[in-house]
Amino acid sequence: MIVTLVYVHVKREHLDDFLHETEKNHQESVKEPGNLRFDILQDANDPYRLLLYEAYESEDAAGNHKKTPHYNAWRNAVELWMAEPRAGVRYNIIQPKDPGKW
Amino acid sequence: MIVTLVYVHVKREHLDDFLHETEKNHQESVKEPGNLRFDILQDANDPYRLLLYEAYESEDAAGNHKKTPHYNAWRNAVELWMAEPRAGVRYNIIQPKDPGKW
Repeated sequence: MIVTLVYVHVKREHLDDFLHETEKNHQESVKEPGNLRFDILQDANDPYRLLLYEAYESEDAAGNHKKTPHYNAWRNAVELWMAEPRAGVRYNIIQPKDPGKW
Repeated sequence: MIVTLVYVHVKREHLDDFLHETEKNHQESVKEPGNLRFDILQDANDPYRLLLYEAYESEDAAGNHKKTPHYNAWRNAVELWMAEPRAGVRYNIIQPKDPGKW
């Protein structure tokens, strides 16, 4: 299992657009085989700072996410709405070790 | 519902100690009323960078966590094992909105 945190800084005038497209991506991503979580969070102190918490059963499952139509539609839609390039950080999972807890 | 991300930079010689105490904290924290998640992650590129992903049903539930014996035991145990003070960042939840998905 692996988790990727994706940090996004959205342009003020495109926050609503970004959230709309990202929620569409969420709805499809959670249906992918091997997806464990796809949480969308908003910094409590800066609404233009968003965080995606993406957990997958395996590297393969995480890689397959980037081949899906919904990921590619999202990537293209949001490209010009970010104030700076988004940054992904990969994490290994210490707990919970039980895939059923994800 | 709220999420707190806690970023920790652990001293090299205390990584195992820190993980041991944090896993104990995890085991008790997930039993708290109002706890939704308490994930422990390790940066895939720097094992001394850890992240706690703590989700609670409410501000009250998150606040009550800091009154528990297991939180306080953890806080005291790890105090001298961190290379710098840990940093918590609060997030509001965009998705999933359904508490049952947490």
